[in-house]
Amino acid sequence: MKILVDAFGGDNSPISVIKGCLQAKYEWPDLNIALCGNEDELLKIGMRQGFNLKKLELIDAKDQITMSQNPTTIFDSKNESSMSIGLKMLKNNQADAFVSAGNTGALAVGASLFVGKLEGIKRAALAPILPTTNGRCLLIDAGANLECRPKTLKQFAIMGSVYAKRILVVSNPQVGLLNVGVEKNKGTALLQETYNLLNCCDEINFIGNIESRNVILGGCDVLVSDGLCGNIILKTMEGTAKFFSNELKNLFNKNNLTKFAYMLLHKELKNFRKSMNYTNHGGAIFLGIQKPVIKAHGSSNATAIKNAVKQAKLCVEQKIIDEISKKLS
Amino acid sequence: MKILVDAFGGDNSPISVIKGCLQAKYEWPDLNIALCGNEDELLKIGMRQGFNLKKLELIDAKDQITMSQNPTTIFDSKNESSMSIGLKMLKNNQADAFVSAGNTGALAVGASLFVGKLEGIKRAALAPILPTTNGRCLLIDAGANLECRPKTLKQFAIMGSVYAKRILVVSNPQVGLLNVGVEKNKGTALLQETYNLLNCCDEINFIGNIESRNVILGGCDVLVSDGLCGNIILKTMEGTAKFFSNELKNLFNKNNLTKFAYMLLHKELKNFRKSMNYTNHGGAIFLGIQKPVIKAHGSSNATAIKNAVKQAKLCVEQKIIDEISKKLS
Repeated sequence: MKILVDAFGGDNSPISVIKGCLQAKYEWPDLNIALCGNEDELLKIGMRQGFNLKKLELIDAKDQITMSQNPTTIFDSKNESSMSIGLKMLKNNQADAFVSAGNTGALAVGASLFVGKLEGIKRAALAPILPTTNGRCLLIDAGANLECRPKTLKQFAIMGSVYAKRILVVSNPQVGLLNVGVEKNKGTALLQETYNLLNCCDEINFIGNIESRNVILGGCDVLVSDGLCGNIILKTMEGTAKFFSNELKNLFNKNNLTKFAYMLLHKELKNFRKSMNYTNHGGAIFLGIQKPVIKAHGSSNATAIKNAVKQAKLCVEQKIIDEISKKLS
Repeated sequence: MKILVDAFGGDNSPISVIKGCLQAKYEWPDLNIALCGNEDELLKIGMRQGFNLKKLELIDAKDQITMSQNPTTIFDSKNESSMSIGLKMLKNNQADAFVSAGNTGALAVGASLFVGKLEGIKRAALAPILPTTNGRCLLIDAGANLECRPKTLKQFAIMGSVYAKRILVVSNPQVGLLNVGVEKNKGTALLQETYNLLNCCDEINFIGNIESRNVILGGCDVLVSDGLCGNIILKTMEGTAKFFSNELKNLFNKNNLTKFAYMLLHKELKNFRKSMNYTNHGGAIFLGIQKPVIKAHGSSNATAIKNAVKQAKLCVEQKIIDEISKKLS
């Protein structure tokens, strides 16, 4: 199995990406990991940092797509970016999965157009993992498709269920529809139509509407939403978590008593932070694409990259693409 | 000045409502406060609980609208609920403002249809206060209008600015548009059109798009959104706050060391909780209605009711309805 990794994607690339790949290679020696990026530059950095790059395959790509570039840059026929070269290799069966911490929009466009969507799939969706009280919840879609038809949302529900079952190891994943209230007649006409469609779908375990306050409290295993509302719930959680973390920091720094209390709590707080840490969950997968394409967080450190590689490996091992195709046909 | 209060609205009514009104009367002896509700029942409860109901005016209303009833119940011509009688009195200039912790949908419908919308107003909006790092942010709309045209959102922005200036005492409130990214071309066609409309509006200080993660971190003073996305951000914040509060509680209960740490932090945690407490901010106002109508939180305690009465009083004193009319004409 070969996993391709975009060396020049994300705020901490390429160093964190190289480190993460080397960690993955150490943990799974049989896994082939290939780094896409400017070879000269990678070798130079490898020398300077003392990385043993011989453990990894290097695939030369002269350019890179920056975070601020327009996603459509990837269309440019002359584009030799690490991302476009990686995705084209994936298409040509020269690898089994692709991981990038780079420009999300470009990756979405590139995945759909170079690698291609599965037969019958209307839109590919970005599916990150949200931490919850009792574990994890897969959000589908987190922003790749701001507006979605009910049929598209039904495909999201089916794809998300397969992922939750195979990768998150939830035996009968509960699927919820993000809405403003739990009653079936709540929300816009589009949400009501989606409710009815999901309610009649035998492929999933639909439990009804979910209010956004109950998602983090463990309301469902798969949360179905259009990309606009999905993006809002994801980023609100991030912001609120950041807010609480800042406020707690200030609180602990108030005086000597509170500083002492922090020392007493240090170990427990560290465990809590660890359980909330996005780097443990790998990245967000694009579901609906013919091969696994994983978007790692833009600010990924080495551990996050390693876990995104692990996630890609799992997706290949668990044949989730085949399973999704089967369920959708 | 007379403030009408729905005695039979909210999970803790009527006792918390009566208590809150008595507290308000004690704090502002010149304020006339009238309780709408079944008089016999109120007198009975007053006797039993030792409340001096002579301090308050009682307005008899035989019925009540429950939390689970369909909002359109309020249309019923035979409906003698405390909510509909209160709203009709407000319309007939028998009071200056109305406060209820009852059924939000019924209050929205009743406010628009009995009290009436301001001239030129397309939709009335529900505007609660969100706590932020540096103070407060007015969210408009929190769920009264799930889908909104750009012109409606522009009216929300103007009304929200007036409220932030007059009631939250922000001199030049920064208005942000809830979106998936900060760039002006982000979001749906509707959001892009709204951006352009707000950007040309002289009545407000528009600072551009706001991502949901930055709202609680203090990104703007007035957050403009349709009711669907507004409801999602509001309830996600509530859920995430609840999640952190639960997790901290578990953490403090881990062992004797963590329990001791809690004792050391007790005072600071209490202050933090106080700053986050919704009861301090009163309720959410319906903006766009001819008189102030305040929706107190469904689980309001006496303090929350007192603060909602205070908020209603402030709205009357500050003549915010006149100011909104002026800005919109």
